Amino acid sequence: MDVTWKRKFEGLVVAGFLYSIIVHVSEGGITSSFVRNYDYSLDMPLDSDVFRVPPGYNAPQQVHITQGDHLGKGVIISWITQDEPGSSTVIYWAQDSRLRKQAQGFFLSYKYFNYTSGYIHHCTIENLEFDTKYFYEVGIGFTTRQFWFKTPPPVGPDVPYTFGLIGDLGQTYDSNTTLTHYEKSPAKGETVLYVGDLSYADDYPFHDNIRWDTWGRFTERVAAYQPWIWTAGNHELDFAPELGETRPFKPYTARYHVPFQASHSTSPLWYSIRRASAYIIVMSSYSAFGKYTPQYEWLEKEFLKVNRAETPWLIVLMHCPIYSSYVDHYMEGETVRVMYERWFVKYKVDVVFAGHVHAYERSERVSNIAYNIVNGLCKPVNDQSAPVYITIGDGGNLEGLAIAMTEPQPRYSSFREASFGHGILDIKNRSHAYFSWNRNQDGYAVEADSIWLHNRYWTRSDEASLSALRNNKIKQVAEA
Amino acid sequence: MDVTWKRKFEGLVVAGFLYSIIVHVSEGGITSSFVRNYDYSLDMPLDSDVFRVPPGYNAPQQVHITQGDHLGKGVIISWITQDEPGSSTVIYWAQDSRLRKQAQGFFLSYKYFNYTSGYIHHCTIENLEFDTKYFYEVGIGFTTRQFWFKTPPPVGPDVPYTFGLIGDLGQTYDSNTTLTHYEKSPAKGETVLYVGDLSYADDYPFHDNIRWDTWGRFTERVAAYQPWIWTAGNHELDFAPELGETRPFKPYTARYHVPFQASHSTSPLWYSIRRASAYIIVMSSYSAFGKYTPQYEWLEKEFLKVNRAETPWLIVLMHCPIYSSYVDHYMEGETVRVMYERWFVKYKVDVVFAGHVHAYERSERVSNIAYNIVNGLCKPVNDQSAPVYITIGDGGNLEGLAIAMTEPQPRYSSFREASFGHGILDIKNRSHAYFSWNRNQDGYAVEADSIWLHNRYWTRSDEASLSALRNNKIKQVAEA
Repeated sequence: MDVTWKRKFEGLVVAGFLYSIIVHVSEGGITSSFVRNYDYSLDMPLDSDVFRVPPGYNAPQQVHITQGDHLGKGVIISWITQDEPGSSTVIYWAQDSRLRKQAQGFFLSYKYFNYTSGYIHHCTIENLEFDTKYFYEVGIGFTTRQFWFKTPPPVGPDVPYTFGLIGDLGQTYDSNTTLTHYEKSPAKGETVLYVGDLSYADDYPFHDNIRWDTWGRFTERVAAYQPWIWTAGNHELDFAPELGETRPFKPYTARYHVPFQASHSTSPLWYSIRRASAYIIVMSSYSAFGKYTPQYEWLEKEFLKVNRAETPWLIVLMHCPIYSSYVDHYMEGETVRVMYERWFVKYKVDVVFAGHVHAYERSERVSNIAYNIVNGLCKPVNDQSAPVYITIGDGGNLEGLAIAMTEPQPRYSSFREASFGHGILDIKNRSHAYFSWNRNQDGYAVEADSIWLHNRYWTRSDEASLSALRNNKIKQVAEA
Repeated sequence: MDVTWKRKFEGLVVAGFLYSIIVHVSEGGITSSFVRNYDYSLDMPLDSDVFRVPPGYNAPQQVHITQGDHLGKGVIISWITQDEPGSSTVIYWAQDSRLRKQAQGFFLSYKYFNYTSGYIHHCTIENLEFDTKYFYEVGIGFTTRQFWFKTPPPVGPDVPYTFGLIGDLGQTYDSNTTLTHYEKSPAKGETVLYVGDLSYADDYPFHDNIRWDTWGRFTERVAAYQPWIWTAGNHELDFAPELGETRPFKPYTARYHVPFQASHSTSPLWYSIRRASAYIIVMSSYSAFGKYTPQYEWLEKEFLKVNRAETPWLIVLMHCPIYSSYVDHYMEGETVRVMYERWFVKYKVDVVFAGHVHAYERSERVSNIAYNIVNGLCKPVNDQSAPVYITIGDGGNLEGLAIAMTEPQPRYSSFREASFGHGILDIKNRSHAYFSWNRNQDGYAVEADSIWLHNRYWTRSDEASLSALRNNKIKQVAEA
């Protein structure tokens, strides 16, 4: 318990500079590979300080918050009490106010094979002021704990906002490094877009749900202070008929609530929110998504609701990437791609973030939607209406990095590197956003990859054409 | 009530001969089109004789049976009582036996918007003798009704057996004609493989579940006497959040039980049975099917369980076809195809039956599994390890025929015709089966299309090679 893992692994940041870097360019895309001196990372032991149970009888633990409505004026606060149910009430107040309000939540618990959860509390607080720091207190009646968060500015087209991107985090030493890098990033992410695969409890015998609890305690240091927007990954399925556990997503949906009704979804596995200048659509790779299914019916209506004059930035989160060039999980996203890529292009989605592959990758703006079975047109082609696809499943879990890449690097892949890290999406205004990727071996301010994103709705088409023309001229000059 | 619709529409059979037939050949495949003098068919009115409630207080109605175990020694008997629950007991006896046995079932009911179902009874009877005619009686205590069925022969590689193929039946005059044609077919189908879309109740305001009841009464004349193997279609979803109905498949799963646990499935929407010389795998087009999902995990194990030395004929049923060349629903099956076609070829599935498209179509043996995103290989090619894909969604429902076809007829399509009808799969032995298609306008014995299926496991590869060689020689002769 004396070892501060955080410090220990911040040391790795320095070590990272000593690693040799190999960068090679193939068909235009960049493949960057660190040569690493370690392989799979272990999960932090149960007695690690990051997993410490907060002191005091029945102290609220695993505190985490997420957006609680469609606009950003609501917050869902969740926590677990272990000894007895205690209170589901949250007391909260604005920073400059003496008025203490309270909201009533509820609690639930679940059984999973031989595990019984603590009392999982969820409390939604609504009608908050925008752009305001709030304090909140949970555990009323016994040990209380205080936290705070800041509401976003009102939804609007030119509202700057900074999102963090984390995926496949797990609870290894690398996971801890990733989380620390996100916390200390000078980019100061205000909300985490989490692209799925949380605790990796299912990698343990009997899906040891104690690892769901440790993950909740581990991530509290960030997730209690800013909303994490949740996406379900395959490690959230916890489908284990051999244990008699046949209801998919049981621990996940019990622990992580999302405001799905606010977007008229019928399932917590797909939903949307607006936040600042962004419209964020969360999809479920592991639910039914064929035509006529609930997710399809919802998504079909959802795209029509997006008002780019209000929220210029249209962002999709899903767990399994539909453009990836790593060997691990190669083509697993095809079944979703053939269903939905058309819509991403039609509705000019700006960026699609995914996880699943334990590495980082950024695509070109490409589409592959000309295929009609008989025409032979099935290669990704440049398409200025297409999103950029970013795989950010490099949180650092116990399954290790996806080192193997398909070769040569395909044209659709712009940059790829098998290192742990996190992303930052820094929206500046309606037309410009800056995405950067930080690898765990670097300093907090170092960007290992970055790109200016030009909004697909607000960027004039002649700008795109000009860019194409310019590239063409450069090519002609080069060939001359 | 005096009008016998059955007779009236058998008249259409004669009229069918007067229709002009246009057959044209395109790229090798055959497109046959009737020119019809009617368009959409209406549902039969509620007071039609086929919907008659059986007489007597609380008389069992909507009686239907399906296989009740994995081998064919069990039967699930289902029926509905409307006035009060009554008894869920079934009394049954073998034809040549005086020993009356009884089995205890159970009942359930459900609410759907403003509709409340009757008492839906399900009773599984097990350990029957193979190849035996059984009588059974339901409605014990009040009005009783007697029916009978015949168990299949023991599972074995050379057991002949005849399956009927019906899909998208609905409850129009055309539906009635289809059912009559199946009943009167000299091919004498012993079990119906039903490829989804049953009642089309969801096409009515508030998904009027009374049309589920009428459909149950309409089909009783066949479904009470031989098992129907059920596949869920999109019209079984009954997903209507606007009515507060958000649980998919609610009426369907309440009314139609299947022996899914016998194949270790965790959902009635996907399962398998063995029957005679066939191994039948039922898939769900409208459930999650991505990698890691319950259906995927089940199917992955399922294919490994098939012993072709015991059940040579490997048959897959699903609602949405993955090879179709009609305009309606074109490419809707792609999302399933990219997931599972590889397995169909790897495990040498003999034939895949689907519905959904309201027409008939039979494919060549083709596959389209060479695609790897960057290689441009995405056209269906001849593949002797691939199944024949047969679309048989031509039961005759109120939505009408899928007349429009993609042109020219693609090479993967061997025969297509937009007429209502049904199919017969007549398994002769381990190596040969005969599939035929009967259109409603023809006499009961007329085959509008037919094909000899050579078993993919038991047909020696040199036979396939010889066939290819022969075709090649014919081509050389033609070119000379």
